[in-house]
Amino acid sequence: MTTVSGFLYPRTATGRSSLIPSPPWHYSGDLLTVEYRTDPARVRELLPEPLELAQDDPGAVALIWADWQSCATSREELLDPVRAQYKEAFAVVRCSYRGRTYSRCVYIWVDKDFAIARGIHQGYPKKLGSIHLTRPHPYGPAPKIEAGARFGATLAAADRRLAQAVVTLREPARSNGFVNGHPMAHHRLLPSIEKGGGLALDELVESGAAAVEGGVPWRGEADLELFEAPTEELARLEVREPIAAYYRQVGVVWDGGTLLESPAKDRS
Amino acid sequence: MTTVSGFLYPRTATGRSSLIPSPPWHYSGDLLTVEYRTDPARVRELLPEPLELAQDDPGAVALIWADWQSCATSREELLDPVRAQYKEAFAVVRCSYRGRTYSRCVYIWVDKDFAIARGIHQGYPKKLGSIHLTRPHPYGPAPKIEAGARFGATLAAADRRLAQAVVTLREPARSNGFVNGHPMAHHRLLPSIEKGGGLALDELVESGAAAVEGGVPWRGEADLELFEAPTEELARLEVREPIAAYYRQVGVVWDGGTLLESPAKDRS
Amino acid sequence: MTTVSGFLYPRTATGRSSLIPSPPWHYSGDLLTVEYRTDPARVRELLPEPLELAQDDPGAVALIWADWQSCATSREELLDPVRAQYKEAFAVVRCSYRGRTYSRCVYIWVDKDFAIARGIHQGYPKKLGSIHLTRPHPYGPAPKIEAGARFGATLAAADRRLAQAVVTLREPARSNGFVNGHPMAHHRLLPSIEKGGGLALDELVESGAAAVEGGVPWRGEADLELFEAPTEELARLEVREPIAAYYRQVGVVWDGGTLLESPAKDRS
Amino acid sequence: MTTVSGFLYPRTATGRSSLIPSPPWHYSGDLLTVEYRTDPARVRELLPEPLELAQDDPGAVALIWADWQSCATSREELLDPVRAQYKEAFAVVRCSYRGRTYSRCVYIWVDKDFAIARGIHQGYPKKLGSIHLTRPHPYGPAPKIEAGARFGATLAAADRRLAQAVVTLREPARSNGFVNGHPMAHHRLLPSIEKGGGLALDELVESGAAAVEGGVPWRGEADLELFEAPTEELARLEVREPIAAYYRQVGVVWDGGTLLESPAKDRS
Repeated sequence: MTTVSGFLYPRTATGRSSLIPSPPWHYSGDLLTVEYRTDPARVRELLPEPLELAQDDPGAVALIWADWQSCATSREELLDPVRAQYKEAFAVVRCSYRGRTYSRCVYIWVDKDFAIARGIHQGYPKKLGSIHLTRPHPYGPAPKIEAGARFGATLAAADRRLAQAVVTLREPARSNGFVNGHPMAHHRLLPSIEKGGGLALDELVESGAAAVEGGVPWRGEADLELFEAPTEELARLEVREPIAAYYRQVGVVWDGGTLLESPAKDRS
Repeated sequence: MTTVSGFLYPRTATGRSSLIPSPPWHYSGDLLTVEYRTDPARVRELLPEPLELAQDDPGAVALIWADWQSCATSREELLDPVRAQYKEAFAVVRCSYRGRTYSRCVYIWVDKDFAIARGIHQGYPKKLGSIHLTRPHPYGPAPKIEAGARFGATLAAADRRLAQAVVTLREPARSNGFVNGHPMAHHRLLPSIEKGGGLALDELVESGAAAVEGGVPWRGEADLELFEAPTEELARLEVREPIAAYYRQVGVVWDGGTLLESPAKDRS
Repeated sequence: MTTVSGFLYPRTATGRSSLIPSPPWHYSGDLLTVEYRTDPARVRELLPEPLELAQDDPGAVALIWADWQSCATSREELLDPVRAQYKEAFAVVRCSYRGRTYSRCVYIWVDKDFAIARGIHQGYPKKLGSIHLTRPHPYGPAPKIEAGARFGATLAAADRRLAQAVVTLREPARSNGFVNGHPMAHHRLLPSIEKGGGLALDELVESGAAAVEGGVPWRGEADLELFEAPTEELARLEVREPIAAYYRQVGVVWDGGTLLESPAKDRS
Repeated sequence: MTTVSGFLYPRTATGRSSLIPSPPWHYSGDLLTVEYRTDPARVRELLPEPLELAQDDPGAVALIWADWQSCATSREELLDPVRAQYKEAFAVVRCSYRGRTYSRCVYIWVDKDFAIARGIHQGYPKKLGSIHLTRPHPYGPAPKIEAGARFGATLAAADRRLAQAVVTLREPARSNGFVNGHPMAHHRLLPSIEKGGGLALDELVESGAAAVEGGVPWRGEADLELFEAPTEELARLEVREPIAAYYRQVGVVWDGGTLLESPAKDRS
C-alpha cells in the first residue's frame, strides 16, 4: 500500500515536490495601499449570498501593492530567493456575514506559482500579473519613508496595464487603512469534473494573520488610474472619491483559518 | 440577492473575469514525446492507493513537451495570442484502477496562469516552468518533420534546468507512444482551511480527450537528461532503458470527465 | 601577450562566451505584415540627413510581427531552443539615399538578448518587448494559411500594450508587401564615453538578406491599433489609410552589409 | 533638413523614445559581494593587451549581485518602477594598464533592456539573466543587516543556473571589498558591418562613479558555487581560495568616463 505526501500537489513519497509546504507561512514585506470609494453597487455585485454589503462605508475599496519575501518553517526559501520573493497587487472590499464585518479580496495578481497555490488554499482569486512598486532605500535617488516621499506602483496582466498609482507620503498614521483590516471572508470553489455537475468544492472560509508586526504606517494621497481589459473588471471599481494612501513595512504569519460554511456539503 | 458567475475565480456579475471559461476547451499543438523505462518502484511510490502499478510494462514513463494554442468556445483567445499560447512539459506513467489501465500525469510544468487553472480542474499537478521545444518549419535551418530531423526540448523551473532532450526522427509510426494513451486517472485535492483538518477535496477523477485529430506520428530516438533540484523529484524517474521518441501535430478537444471516487465525501 | 576572441562581448580565450557568434546567421520564421499610410511628415521626422523621404508613396509604413528560430553556422542553437527562438515586432518605412530607395527599421522590439545584440550590429534599434502572434497549425482551432484565416498579433513593452492587429487572409499574393522590400539603410551609433564628446560611432550602413526562400505569400486586410506610452512614439505613425496585410513563411540568411558613410570617421 | 535626437537609439524628433536618456544616471541599491582567488592564468586569459595582470593578488575575483533602482535626471523612472528596477550579477577582476591598477568587469548579466543599453555605453559585456538576492527587511523572517544574518544569491541564464551563493554576515567592515574598488577599464567594441572588416569601434575606456554614498559595509563569508553552461565561462574562474563576502547599501551617480585609447582610430 502506497501513501504519498505533500501539502499540495504533486504528492510524492517524500513530499518535497509539493508546490507549497504546510503552513505556517512567514512573510516580510512592504504594503502600498490606496483606499477610495466606488459605487457600492459595484461592490455588491461581487458579493455572492449570503454575503452582504458592509453597513458602514459600503463602497470603500483598497487597492494594495505588496512586495514580499516568504517562507515556510524551514526558511530555506529565503536563501534561494527565486523561491521566496514575489509581488502582488490586489483589490479588497468589505462585506457583512452574519452581522460581522469581513474584508474580502475580489481581484488579485501575483508573479509566482507558489503564490498562486497559496491563494487556492486561502481563497484568494489569483491570476498571474506583472507588478512593480517603488522600494524605499536609504541612499541615492530612491525615496525614504518620510514626508514628501513619492512611490509609484503598476499592475499589468496579459500584456496590458491594468492599474497605476503614484503615492505621496505626508505623515505617520495609526494604521495603513481600514478596508483590509478585518478577517478575510473568501470562497474556495472548484467545479465538478463532470459537465453540468455544479461545484465539487464550495466553501466560505475565514482567515487572517496569526501574527503581525510592523513599522509605523505613513499616510498620504494617491493618483490612481484603472484601465479596461477584455478579461478584467478591476476598472468597474471606478474611483468616485479618494480616501487616502498608506505605506507600511510588516512581518506576517499565516497559519490556517476556519470553515464558515460549505453549501454543497451541507446539502449532501 | 446577488449571484456571481464564472467557471472559476474571480467570479463577478458578468463572469468574464474568470481565469478560465467553461469547457469545452480546444487545442492545436505539437507533441514531442520521449518514452523510457525506469525502476517500477519509482513509479509505484507516486501512486496513492487504490491505484496500482500497471500490469504490463509498469516502469514505462513518457516525458512530453507540448507547444499549444488553446481557446474556449468563442475562440477569441486565438486573436489575442498571449491568452492562447502556452508550452508545457509533463511526465506521465501508467497505473491500474479496478482492473483498468489509466495514464497519470505525475509532474507538469506550464508557462501561463490559465494553464495552471485548467490543471487544477483536471487534476494535473501544474507548476510554472520555462519550456522550449524546436518547432518544425518548411524554410530555413529549422527541421521539417522527416527522417533525420532533430528537435531539442528543455525544461527549467526556479532558474534550474530540470530536463533536456534531443530527438532524432526516423520514420512514420502508427502512434506517438503508449504511456499517455489511456484515460487519465488524476487526483484533485485541496487541504482543509483548518489546521489539521485533512483534505477538503479529495477526488479521483477520470478524463480524456473528447475528440482528437492529428497528423502522421513520427518515431525516432532521444538523448534525454534529467537534473536534480531541491524541490523537484523528476530525476528520480531515472532512465533505465530508452523506448522511443515521437513527434506529432494534433488538434484536441477536452470537455469534462467523470468522478471515480471521493473518499472524503464517501466517508461523510 | 594575450588575445581574446569572440564576435561580440564578452570576449574570452575561446570565444564561446560571445553573446552572438559570427555571421552568417540563419533564420526560419513566419512574418505577419500590416502595411498602411501615415502622414509623410511623421516619416520624415525619423529620417536624419542625408536620408530623404522616398519619392513614391512616402508615408507608407509596414508594421511586422515575426516568430523566428535562428542559429549560426553550427546550428547548435536549434537543439537548445531557448537560444534559438525569439519573436519581434518592428516598424519599417522607406527612404531615399543618393537616389536609391531603402527600407529602414525605425522601431523594433524583441524578446531575447541575442536578438538585441544582432540589432546593435545591424543597426536595428532594438528594445525588449513582449510579442505574440497567432501561429498557423494544421489541426484544431488554430488557423491554417488559407482564405478567411484570422491571425492576431500584439506588442507590449514596459507593461503597456503598444500595438495590436487582427489580420484576415483573402488570397495568395505575389509578395508580402513593398515597404520592407529594399535593402535596409540603418545607422549604427554609440555616444562617446566622454561627456559632450559627440558620437564615437556614427555609421550609415546597408544590409539585406544574403538569401531568402519562402512559401506563397497571402494577402488580406488588418484591423490595427496603436497605443501611446511615455517612452514610445510608435503611435505617432498613426494609421491614415490601410494598404494591406500579409502572411508569409520564410527562410533567411544574413551575412553582413556595407558601410555607406561614417561622418565621424570621415571628419577625422 | 531633418535632425533626430536621443542619447541612444531609436532616435526621433523629440528624443523621448531613446532606450536610455543621457547621463548622469542615479542609482540606489544593495550590493552583495563575494571575493575569492582563482588561478591567475584564468584572469590573464581575459585581459587583452595592453592590459596586464594586476601586480598584487592577481587572481582575485569579485562576484557581485546588485539590486538596483535607477533613473536619469528627471527621476521619472522611479514612479514607473518597471523602468527603474533591475538586478544584475557580475564578475570583476583587476588589471594593470600603464602602471595603474583598474577593475574590469569580465562577465555580467542583467534583467532589463535599459541596463543592457547602459552597458553598451560603459563597456560592460551585458547579457540577460535571471538574478535574485535576499533583501534585508526589518520585520518578519527576512534577514536584517546584522551579525549572523544570511543572504542567498543566484544567477541563471538561458534556463541554466550559473552561480549561487549563501553569505553569512559577521561584523561591520571598512569597505565592501577591494576587487571592484578601482576605476573600471573596459573595452567598447563593435565589429564592422562588412565581413572580415575587423572592428568598427575598438576603444579602451575608463570610468567610475561620479559620486558614491553608502551605509556601513558588513563583512562575512560565503559558500559559492559556479556551474558550467555551453555558452558561458564564468565557471572557469573557479574558486581556489575564499577571501570574504560583503553587504552594503549604496547610492551612486555615473556621469561619463575617459577614452584611454582607440587602436582603430589611432591607426587611421
